[in-house]
Amino acid sequence: MTNKFNNVYVGDSYTIASVYEKDGPIADYFDKVYDKDLYYGCDTFEKAEEKMLSDSIENLIDKVEYKDSDIDYVISGDLENQIAASDYALRHFDIPFLGIFSACATFGEGLLIGANLIEGKRAKNIIVSTSSHNMMAEKQFRNPTEYGAPKKKTTTWTSTGAACMLLTNKKGKIKITSATCGKVQDKNVTDVNNMGAVMAIAAADTIERHLVDLNIKPNYYDLILTGDLGCYGKEILIDYLKTKNIDISKNYEDCGLILYDIKKQNVFAGASGPASSALVLCSYLLKEMERGKYKKILLVPTGAIFSPTRTFQKDSIPSIAHAISFEVSE
Amino acid sequence: MTNKFNNVYVGDSYTIASVYEKDGPIADYFDKVYDKDLYYGCDTFEKAEEKMLSDSIENLIDKVEYKDSDIDYVISGDLENQIAASDYALRHFDIPFLGIFSACATFGEGLLIGANLIEGKRAKNIIVSTSSHNMMAEKQFRNPTEYGAPKKKTTTWTSTGAACMLLTNKKGKIKITSATCGKVQDKNVTDVNNMGAVMAIAAADTIERHLVDLNIKPNYYDLILTGDLGCYGKEILIDYLKTKNIDISKNYEDCGLILYDIKKQNVFAGASGPASSALVLCSYLLKEMERGKYKKILLVPTGAIFSPTRTFQKDSIPSIAHAISFEVSE
Repeated sequence: MTNKFNNVYVGDSYTIASVYEKDGPIADYFDKVYDKDLYYGCDTFEKAEEKMLSDSIENLIDKVEYKDSDIDYVISGDLENQIAASDYALRHFDIPFLGIFSACATFGEGLLIGANLIEGKRAKNIIVSTSSHNMMAEKQFRNPTEYGAPKKKTTTWTSTGAACMLLTNKKGKIKITSATCGKVQDKNVTDVNNMGAVMAIAAADTIERHLVDLNIKPNYYDLILTGDLGCYGKEILIDYLKTKNIDISKNYEDCGLILYDIKKQNVFAGASGPASSALVLCSYLLKEMERGKYKKILLVPTGAIFSPTRTFQKDSIPSIAHAISFEVSE
Repeated sequence: MTNKFNNVYVGDSYTIASVYEKDGPIADYFDKVYDKDLYYGCDTFEKAEEKMLSDSIENLIDKVEYKDSDIDYVISGDLENQIAASDYALRHFDIPFLGIFSACATFGEGLLIGANLIEGKRAKNIIVSTSSHNMMAEKQFRNPTEYGAPKKKTTTWTSTGAACMLLTNKKGKIKITSATCGKVQDKNVTDVNNMGAVMAIAAADTIERHLVDLNIKPNYYDLILTGDLGCYGKEILIDYLKTKNIDISKNYEDCGLILYDIKKQNVFAGASGPASSALVLCSYLLKEMERGKYKKILLVPTGAIFSPTRTFQKDSIPSIAHAISFEVSE
């Protein structure tokens, strides 16, 4: 099922990026960069992620000159166990909170829920937010970086940043026009060092259902973007969709390859993490839509919703992807 | 903000409980009990929780004689890191999935989102589900049980079970009439062995806002229920609300004291876990509403949205509670 929207607008957005992102191709588009180190004055990476997320929400509320009481809901999630960055960040606000988890597709799920609440006249102003922190993710999902474990080239690099977007029923230049919710895919892949391959299948399923539901072709969009498939997952998605007679090769890119330049930066197959698609959307994409470079885009945040505990138990890796379309309103 | 609903009904529900719950006061109300052991034929507790949750959703769909394609969304979450029970359970279905996390208040958040999507005409049939597993929770949040670590009397006992509810726009006997979303509370409590005290503050905030928003008194409801405060948290909530001139002492109970009999069972202060309120609601409460014992109830699932990592870093424990009201329709 694809939900359509007529009354959901992007009010504004705020992005905070970090040391790796400032060396990437879209560094000039971020609202703020915390580039001294990865701690931001906190004593742990987890607290640093909380600060980054909470600062981004606070700065967005200030930017649009609102108060906490003007926001009906914050919808937020992240990669930390118990979505701790969001849980702990929200204690600094007096706003109803809906915690979500869809791994690196979390921002897509938040936009889908938020847009539906506004279109259904259940809320007027909603902030959707997410964050990720490279060192937190390495510690929790991979190995503490102090171990110096070698990495496969198919590995992606968890982005460090926080992004949030105000969704509103007040008319604005950019609107959300539709959302297709992901279904969990599991094709028995077990390689945690190749998440692009795992998630490409989920992206393909969601993109195909999106196009069928709306009866449109890929060229309806100026740009189709996945969240964090990286350079290898990207090729898999293009090839896999071709077997279904869907050709996205001409207008498709992965956010993980926009946030970082994999030829110049030492980030393996590209950026990942929920902040990957959220940072690219809330900085580069929105600004270039406002400037007229893109009129219609389809963002497909992709998530490997696996648990390290299950991986140790030899289980396979489930994945999901949600599709959200943005259009410049006439 | 409290959302009101006029067109959201409880289609049906399904509950699966386990070895501790079958010895409790409401054992006769469950649809199914897995009481041989805590593995259900699986080789890990995590896989057992996945099976319990996936069986409950499958059995609910069978019970109402639907197919996967009749369900617009499953909204689900649980206590496992990465809400793994829900993520992995949903791979067995062909249904759009929204993953949520609000710790033990997760079922409340799911009902709130689901009811809003239906009231706003964004969906027709939604399954909200959750689960918890005692041994999984002990391992992840406390100590592996093999350690035999002693427990404080204020500790609660994570319930083992899965529960799901079909929300629908089709008229039925019981309707959801309102929902008040929680705000994150943090009063600097750090005792992870006394979650009742942590969460009582969140329950008080949400109950107070609910009553003010709807301009009603506690006696509007036949029964007000918190999710899993246990016997000590229950007293704190009653006393704390009295300081705000709100008296819930006559019609208030905690689901953790309905699911288990703390005088007969060795479960410390009572049941906890997202399954605590979900099992009680989807079995005992719904059936007794159908039979006419209760006409109006307010369910307030309570959650300590903390992370063990943060506790090790000496941080305090944030909490949240969501309030959902159910009424027998005229």
